[in-house]
Amino acid sequence: MSSELSTADQAAITSGSDFWHTSAVESAGLPAVTVTDGPHGVRMQASGGDLLAGVPATCFPPAVASASTWDPDLLRRMGEALGDECRAQDVAVLLGPGVNIKRSPLGGRNFEYFSEDPILTGILATEWVRGLQSKGVGASLKHFAVNSQETDRMRVSAEVDERTLREIYLRAFHRVVTQAQPWTVMCAYNKVNGVYASEHHWLLTEVLRDEWGFEGLVVSDWGAVVDRVKAVAAGLDLTMPGPDAAGDAALVGAVEAGQLDPALLRVSAERVRKLVEKAGQRPAGGYDAAAHHALAREIAGRAIVLLKNEGGLLPLADSGVSVAVLGEFARTPRYQGGGSSQITPTQLDDALTQIQASTGAAVTFAAGYTVEGTEADEALLAEAVTAARSSDVAVVFVGSVHETEGADRDSLDLPASQLALIERVAAANPRTIVVLSNGAVIATKPWDDTVPALVEGWLLGQAGGSAIADVLFGRVNPSGRLAETIPLKLADHPSYLDFPGENGHVRYGEGIHVGYRGFDAREQDVAYPFGFGLSYTTFSYGTPSAVATATGIEVRVPVTNTGSRAGREVVQAYVSLPGSSVRRAPRELKAFASAEIEAGATTEVVLTIDRADLAYWETRLGRWVVEGGAYQVSIGASSRDIRAEVTLDVTADDARVPLTVESSVGEWFADPRGAELLGAAFASAAAEAAGDADSPMSAMAADPAMLMMLGSLPLSRMAAFPGSPLHAEQLDNLVKEANS
Amino acid sequence: MSSELSTADQAAITSGSDFWHTSAVESAGLPAVTVTDGPHGVRMQASGGDLLAGVPATCFPPAVASASTWDPDLLRRMGEALGDECRAQDVAVLLGPGVNIKRSPLGGRNFEYFSEDPILTGILATEWVRGLQSKGVGASLKHFAVNSQETDRMRVSAEVDERTLREIYLRAFHRVVTQAQPWTVMCAYNKVNGVYASEHHWLLTEVLRDEWGFEGLVVSDWGAVVDRVKAVAAGLDLTMPGPDAAGDAALVGAVEAGQLDPALLRVSAERVRKLVEKAGQRPAGGYDAAAHHALAREIAGRAIVLLKNEGGLLPLADSGVSVAVLGEFARTPRYQGGGSSQITPTQLDDALTQIQASTGAAVTFAAGYTVEGTEADEALLAEAVTAARSSDVAVVFVGSVHETEGADRDSLDLPASQLALIERVAAANPRTIVVLSNGAVIATKPWDDTVPALVEGWLLGQAGGSAIADVLFGRVNPSGRLAETIPLKLADHPSYLDFPGENGHVRYGEGIHVGYRGFDAREQDVAYPFGFGLSYTTFSYGTPSAVATATGIEVRVPVTNTGSRAGREVVQAYVSLPGSSVRRAPRELKAFASAEIEAGATTEVVLTIDRADLAYWETRLGRWVVEGGAYQVSIGASSRDIRAEVTLDVTADDARVPLTVESSVGEWFADPRGAELLGAAFASAAAEAAGDADSPMSAMAADPAMLMMLGSLPLSRMAAFPGSPLHAEQLDNLVKEANS
Repeated sequence: MSSELSTADQAAITSGSDFWHTSAVESAGLPAVTVTDGPHGVRMQASGGDLLAGVPATCFPPAVASASTWDPDLLRRMGEALGDECRAQDVAVLLGPGVNIKRSPLGGRNFEYFSEDPILTGILATEWVRGLQSKGVGASLKHFAVNSQETDRMRVSAEVDERTLREIYLRAFHRVVTQAQPWTVMCAYNKVNGVYASEHHWLLTEVLRDEWGFEGLVVSDWGAVVDRVKAVAAGLDLTMPGPDAAGDAALVGAVEAGQLDPALLRVSAERVRKLVEKAGQRPAGGYDAAAHHALAREIAGRAIVLLKNEGGLLPLADSGVSVAVLGEFARTPRYQGGGSSQITPTQLDDALTQIQASTGAAVTFAAGYTVEGTEADEALLAEAVTAARSSDVAVVFVGSVHETEGADRDSLDLPASQLALIERVAAANPRTIVVLSNGAVIATKPWDDTVPALVEGWLLGQAGGSAIADVLFGRVNPSGRLAETIPLKLADHPSYLDFPGENGHVRYGEGIHVGYRGFDAREQDVAYPFGFGLSYTTFSYGTPSAVATATGIEVRVPVTNTGSRAGREVVQAYVSLPGSSVRRAPRELKAFASAEIEAGATTEVVLTIDRADLAYWETRLGRWVVEGGAYQVSIGASSRDIRAEVTLDVTADDARVPLTVESSVGEWFADPRGAELLGAAFASAAAEAAGDADSPMSAMAADPAMLMMLGSLPLSRMAAFPGSPLHAEQLDNLVKEANS
Repeated sequence: MSSELSTADQAAITSGSDFWHTSAVESAGLPAVTVTDGPHGVRMQASGGDLLAGVPATCFPPAVASASTWDPDLLRRMGEALGDECRAQDVAVLLGPGVNIKRSPLGGRNFEYFSEDPILTGILATEWVRGLQSKGVGASLKHFAVNSQETDRMRVSAEVDERTLREIYLRAFHRVVTQAQPWTVMCAYNKVNGVYASEHHWLLTEVLRDEWGFEGLVVSDWGAVVDRVKAVAAGLDLTMPGPDAAGDAALVGAVEAGQLDPALLRVSAERVRKLVEKAGQRPAGGYDAAAHHALAREIAGRAIVLLKNEGGLLPLADSGVSVAVLGEFARTPRYQGGGSSQITPTQLDDALTQIQASTGAAVTFAAGYTVEGTEADEALLAEAVTAARSSDVAVVFVGSVHETEGADRDSLDLPASQLALIERVAAANPRTIVVLSNGAVIATKPWDDTVPALVEGWLLGQAGGSAIADVLFGRVNPSGRLAETIPLKLADHPSYLDFPGENGHVRYGEGIHVGYRGFDAREQDVAYPFGFGLSYTTFSYGTPSAVATATGIEVRVPVTNTGSRAGREVVQAYVSLPGSSVRRAPRELKAFASAEIEAGATTEVVLTIDRADLAYWETRLGRWVVEGGAYQVSIGASSRDIRAEVTLDVTADDARVPLTVESSVGEWFADPRGAELLGAAFASAAAEAAGDADSPMSAMAADPAMLMMLGSLPLSRMAAFPGSPLHAEQLDNLVKEANS
């Protein structure tokens, strides 16, 4: 019972005791528990001095990669494995998953986030949380909310309208909270529409708890609390890190002065206590590091996206084909980003060693560039060209050099040193394969036109080197799909004009048109579209069928593996509603499913679309509304490779917008009851004014050509016009009758 | 003295007596005066019953056309002529000019507005006002502000950040107010950031009067006032139309109840009285309708933009060349838009008659389509094809059908009937010229690739038919330039995703990147760029020189007419500041000048850039700031035909942003004084913490690799971290010293 805790104890327990522990309250028998960074590994700080050095743990593929699997089961298994590692390290809460939307490809922390799409993000993150929490370890759903950039992240106000907030930036949070109840939600550093997330009552209380029914605890991002009293009043429970004696005292003072409802602090303290008690119930545990490495390799292999494979250059034969492995990243893997998620891996596979182990033929290595060298190094290039010329195929490893929490990128381009390597090698050997290592989108134009094969290898975690070899040699048939669009150039991106903002503000000017939604709406060409990825086999789609169910739409589509080897196809369902009363993206991902299909076999793939996911946020009513109509479901192998379409009538939610005196003439006439009433009023006025040349508004109302001008007139304003066919005294009755 | 007026009289005089007159106050000897619609003609209502039927007046070219002249002198002369017509009609105030920015090519009222660029708009409108007011007739600068669409115009909230407001949407208003002091400013219907323009104290009082020094009267758009008391409190003086007995009574009641400062109503009444008295001073007058028609023809001829002229197909010889004139618009001219600006012309020229009068050769006419017919009419098409086949050249007249106040367009496309005409005629006669009649941008792709010549004829007013013939036959050498970009397709437009908004809100998501600014920023191809227009001669540019002057920059560039006939060149100066500390459009128009140059002659063109126009709106300081640096001035014949560049160093305004505890570590280090102070504080903390492994923040501050993470940390937040190298107690002193 929290009533045992004094106000001072309540204040103390709602801030940490240090960077990674809650505050113990000995008098109440409450121990401290450990919380530590994730999300793709358990980063226990190794020593007091260096916040970012961790004890060894499995470095699973960061979210940029795991999301490219489009496989919720894999995410659940990753969550379970992380839960085991947490238990081994006595960690109560692992700080993840990060479900912020990749608004811009420049986002410095994109590698920790899943996608530019909220449904994909939400489905994957939900399973990660379920897996983790099945082990008795808490998740921390972060960063709530709209933390889609690093520039000025401690202060910047993300300025975003409510429909966009609801449909894009909060949607994944909503799904994870309602479907997986994470133990904690972490508030973001930034402001949302001018208010710090840590002080945002609407976000932390009205939306998160009152609407969504969140039962857990809200913890601050580290250093996100500006004012403890305002934060607790808004619904923030636990301030990290600590100790925060000044803040504790401020809370006690505010309660004593009657400036803070004591119930709020009591409830927050109670939530911390519940978390500590819940954490105390988990059994200790250990884990099999080799098995976790194998899982990391499996996920990494499934995450790799084959972007281009002309002439079936891949997979490579495992004998008789000599391979030039070029690029420092083959030897020195780039497998994770910088900042709080950085893991000290239990082991680390590099692609060079794994390629050498995969083939009986000759492997020649040349570095081609240095990791920090941005300008072309002629000596290194010459060595690489020689190796490329003397080998049957050349595999060039390039990628991003710096991706880190705390800083956004300023370009999508590879360094000149790496671009030169691709150019020289492609000229020297037409059988050149480029393998990318990157945490966020890299521009592939124009150089990808010069190479026949391109493998998107993301940041793949500690087993990435072996996973790449698995794909190159065909032990894994690639099935990863892009969770983010690769544009032709940065300036094409929907976020381009408004990222990262300036002087403390960033306008989310593209609104709901984030990522592929924007490219599609503006009919732009892209390099590789959202949802895209090749396989070593091919698939054909049969005729889909769709039925309305109690909970939404179920689509079934037969998919045939038309190639000669087993493979996995990720089938995607995009929905549109032609003629919608609100602006919508031309195609929105609503469901996806994957199937492993043997060569020549056909499988029926079932896609389940939740009715709730058809809803848009109706700003006039302040709630979700499913519009009625003929929804078009496009079944595709990517957002721009639609293989089949099916249309299904969906019944509307009851969502009449009440008519008011501020409703326009047009809105009155669009409403059946309103049209009847207003029509009668106009007719009666017209009869009254017949022949009265001084009644201009009545004349206008009788003239169909004038209705265009009048249509946008609010009823109250029309009534105020001299000679109006309506009188102010009529209005209240009209409104009453219209809404009765 | 307004003190003579009772509160009731003050209330009465601040609303109209009917649609087009102010209220007389007989006791005070104040007559009523007439205000009436413009802006490109004097639209005196002819009868009581039909608000939109006017007595005959010269229909000058609407702003879409007059702006394409890029000639302030022509605008001044148009203003003078309108002033004469107002005097003839006893009009005190003409409701114009409209200086709203053409945010979207779909804007229904674009034909009444000048440009997508605020500098061009402001310069032209200023001269129009000067011309009109030189005749003792008042202007009404409208619609203040951000009235860039018709959809839901009575209610919609234009949501736009302050920098965009200042630099784009208010900039032309600012120029006209400060340089020409219009007698009145008309408030818009819409809301600006949630507040009705008619109730917007910041707009109507703080910005317009306090900052800009506006001395005139604010009149409402007709029906824009929702609440008289709120409006007067915000700074609105005159509510139109009237009578508004209920509003008058509400004002009196509010004053009596102490809810409205009586001084506000008194001042508004005084402004109305001053206007009436000022209007009383103008002499009566008349005008020469034939001379005004000739002026309308001159302006129209200068407004026409020659977009394409392959092989010198134009101008046509005035004899020996038979002409097929095709398209109903040649016979039934489309010369103005619908709504309040619609003029009953004193005479009306059609192109067909004028072409017939211009040539000694055969002219054949075929209608090709009907004005209201949207689908292709095979019989009409066949007739046109026959005429085209049997003539030396074919001139096809097409254009928009409906452009009107009260409704935005939903497409840029010509009707199918007209597209079919172009297609058939171009196939029948390779010497086909298309002449457009339109009030806003029409998509020209892909059909313009099939014709050798394209003439943008806008809506040209009552003399448009003769002006078109003047250009076709070379009596006028075209010199008009696009004041708005013609995009390849609607979806390319910067406003596309956010126009016209929905449910009462429209996000100005493209921010400052309006029109060509957005196309340039996103590196998009366009059909015809801002500032573009061909001539029957050619011009070459010499080496420009630029000097800093007391008031800005003066650029001189020699321009040579390299062709064989006299012509006018419009020279444009676009400015950029590479490395600016704020986001800017790649090129911004800052000055332009035109010169009539004889064949073979060279003229030095002088472009004067005001220093004030180099400023950006600094949101942190809430004022205009000229950033120091090397400004690049690009001299061009269009925004994408830059002929010469010159760079000039400009000294900075003194605009240091004070450092605070919420300034980030990075901002402190970017400031010389701040860097010194914070560096010293860090060094002292590092010395203190030397060897202390438990002082993580001190260790971080000493580690250059961590500074990226720390750079965005506000000082106050850093001080709150456990182990911070700064303490909360130090902060006040640091701030004091940094700003001293």
